[in-house]
Amino acid sequence: MGILGDNVKDMYNKAKTFKVLRGVDESLDLMLKSLRIIDLDRSEISVSESLHCFCAEQALSNHDSPPYNRSAVDGYAVISDDILSSSTTNPTTLEVIQEISAESSREIIKPLSNGEASIVYTGSPLPKNSDSVVMVEDTKVEGSSVIVYKPVSPWQNISRKGEDFEKGSVVVEKGILIRPWHLAALLSAGKVKVKVFRRLRVGVLSTGSELKGSLSPSDDGVIDTTKPLILSLIREEFCDPVDLGTAPDNVGIIESKIRQALSKVDLIITTGGTSVGATDLVREAITRLDNSTVLFHGVRMRPGRPTGLAAVQGKAIFMLSGYPVAAFTGFEVFVKSAIHLIRGSKSLPSPMIGAYLSRRLAKPVGVKAFVRVNVKKGSDGKHYVEPLRLTGSGLLSTLTRGNGLLIMEEGLEGYDEGENVDVMLFQPIG
Amino acid sequence: MGILGDNVKDMYNKAKTFKVLRGVDESLDLMLKSLRIIDLDRSEISVSESLHCFCAEQALSNHDSPPYNRSAVDGYAVISDDILSSSTTNPTTLEVIQEISAESSREIIKPLSNGEASIVYTGSPLPKNSDSVVMVEDTKVEGSSVIVYKPVSPWQNISRKGEDFEKGSVVVEKGILIRPWHLAALLSAGKVKVKVFRRLRVGVLSTGSELKGSLSPSDDGVIDTTKPLILSLIREEFCDPVDLGTAPDNVGIIESKIRQALSKVDLIITTGGTSVGATDLVREAITRLDNSTVLFHGVRMRPGRPTGLAAVQGKAIFMLSGYPVAAFTGFEVFVKSAIHLIRGSKSLPSPMIGAYLSRRLAKPVGVKAFVRVNVKKGSDGKHYVEPLRLTGSGLLSTLTRGNGLLIMEEGLEGYDEGENVDVMLFQPIG
Repeated sequence: MGILGDNVKDMYNKAKTFKVLRGVDESLDLMLKSLRIIDLDRSEISVSESLHCFCAEQALSNHDSPPYNRSAVDGYAVISDDILSSSTTNPTTLEVIQEISAESSREIIKPLSNGEASIVYTGSPLPKNSDSVVMVEDTKVEGSSVIVYKPVSPWQNISRKGEDFEKGSVVVEKGILIRPWHLAALLSAGKVKVKVFRRLRVGVLSTGSELKGSLSPSDDGVIDTTKPLILSLIREEFCDPVDLGTAPDNVGIIESKIRQALSKVDLIITTGGTSVGATDLVREAITRLDNSTVLFHGVRMRPGRPTGLAAVQGKAIFMLSGYPVAAFTGFEVFVKSAIHLIRGSKSLPSPMIGAYLSRRLAKPVGVKAFVRVNVKKGSDGKHYVEPLRLTGSGLLSTLTRGNGLLIMEEGLEGYDEGENVDVMLFQPIG
Repeated sequence: MGILGDNVKDMYNKAKTFKVLRGVDESLDLMLKSLRIIDLDRSEISVSESLHCFCAEQALSNHDSPPYNRSAVDGYAVISDDILSSSTTNPTTLEVIQEISAESSREIIKPLSNGEASIVYTGSPLPKNSDSVVMVEDTKVEGSSVIVYKPVSPWQNISRKGEDFEKGSVVVEKGILIRPWHLAALLSAGKVKVKVFRRLRVGVLSTGSELKGSLSPSDDGVIDTTKPLILSLIREEFCDPVDLGTAPDNVGIIESKIRQALSKVDLIITTGGTSVGATDLVREAITRLDNSTVLFHGVRMRPGRPTGLAAVQGKAIFMLSGYPVAAFTGFEVFVKSAIHLIRGSKSLPSPMIGAYLSRRLAKPVGVKAFVRVNVKKGSDGKHYVEPLRLTGSGLLSTLTRGNGLLIMEEGLEGYDEGENVDVMLFQPIG
């Protein structure tokens, strides 16, 4: 704080608005064109510990899975030709020569001859010559014979060798986030180890002389909630968040903190100091660094107007607002896609729901709006949307009390009460 | 394995079908009626480490947030009455008496008198008597004065004290899964610690004499992929998975393993041995335990027909198929909801997408079907659904090669080619 002097004019002579405000789609386009996949280190880990790692190899099956023809049901392994004409009125009698359990050793299983059957269970290896299994409900035991009342087609009720994964076939593609079924499939394919990428390291630098980690009632300043928010969002994207500390509104310190971070992380996010006021020094700090280009800065979106992206020495730096909800929007719209792009992964579509607007909602044309809303189920079973705030980019309560984002395109003037709109849900309903 | 003897008849005289096959909705209903919230232990942890914990208190704000009226923009704090009639042709000139930064100490800020203004930035405390902020773009500096070209309403461009969270108001409700915005809101409300519940412990017992952890090509038996699949699914539900080992098809051993598990975990899942064959002994093992009731066993769904639920000594035991895809379906349909119910949490709706069927799809009436499908974007920009398998409950490849589940209700006979259907996505498209 200073007593008013000649510097007022200086401060306010700085650019008062963004030189260029770009649309969200144009900005995304610029981002997509400039980012490239990073060559991340890989390591080999135990498949059983690979959940939520990214597969770093095209994982191939070591063997046929199933490894041999297996019964898919409880019943009798037969030669299908033997029971071709079986029916309730004209059943076929077969001699039961053995019982084969799922853990039976294949070596001692006797081959079938015509007129013979073997008791099998789900998972049992089939005896040689048998080409199908008749289900136990379609049979009747009589002494050491079985009476069959129904024909079966060749290969009916059998899990055929290699049916799930053939030896050498692709089980999990490179770049895939290993989910429970991938982990199980890798094990099923006989793999015990799998190569995975190291996690992407994403750093967050807060800027703002007013920021405090916590605050007692008499303290001046502002609790920094945006950094912990962004660090947590990074974690939810299966990256390693790196806290790069807090810089005051000093261009030299911001520059030096970013320079130090460049060698430590794969992607940098700054929060705050990215608007067009006198204390908005992040862009200036970035342009002071060698090999830096601002790709875009200033986006026609609300909240999140001061969002920007720069490339410095081959690394992307996202400038996000210091306001938590604006930073959240910038993260959702830009950073998430950037993470997937440089990691070579894909994002799952978000849960969407169609619902009726409980009141009219206007917005300025020429700005894409991300309206925090609350979706509720009405007593008529329909879903209704209550808009919380179009503005208020500092109000975390619009995220904790709401459950969805209503995205309104640039050209739109608004929605009428009762209109059916699509809402992206980030929290459960009700 | 045994040579055929008198026991064949015994084995096959056992119930060959389920006594009662219930519909999915009826089974869910029975489940919901019988489960109750568990009183989980709670502990106090650092808010910054609370991501993905479940909040165990109704967390209230320690203070008003913002703690005082703050500027929401860069501009001039004014008394709105002073500039009521300002316009481009009739501007108002105010004397600038001070500059207030966001970190300025409130103690030394001078109150405004009529005709005065203070330079403020986003986040700056407002001087006493000021009730609004005029944006810098609507002003011009002239010496130590500012010329204002536009009026403002009272409280315009101000983040009012307590606007986000009032002191004592609820910031995060009990039972909520702490997501990034909750964590940030707790910090914003002045909380450094938060009470959270311990994680739900969910145990998985595999049954089946044929099961092996891994297998070399000459080995007999079956690799157990269902248990690692289910353990991983449990982890994705923010629970602690507990591996209860593997029991052979021996009713006494299954019984004893379940008995031991009862005191160790909150919820038990068994895999395998839950159909109606001679080696399906899980239900029998459960009924041997004291205070046990089978709530349902046998569901009109595909895959997952042998799914069951029992209550033993106040704990729920889910019997899932030994086949991975059938177990997956049983988990998705029943266990997930059960976990939310006994934990007192809520599930987020799954991502759904509308798409056109690439071919006709028939199914038996009277069974709810969960068809694994692959959704692709066509060259016409529309989404198309390719059904992978209705059956093949052992085929993990239908999960790794597909990206969605098409749920077909019991009464349905099928869909025609080209019909638009809703698919639940569990993997990204394309």
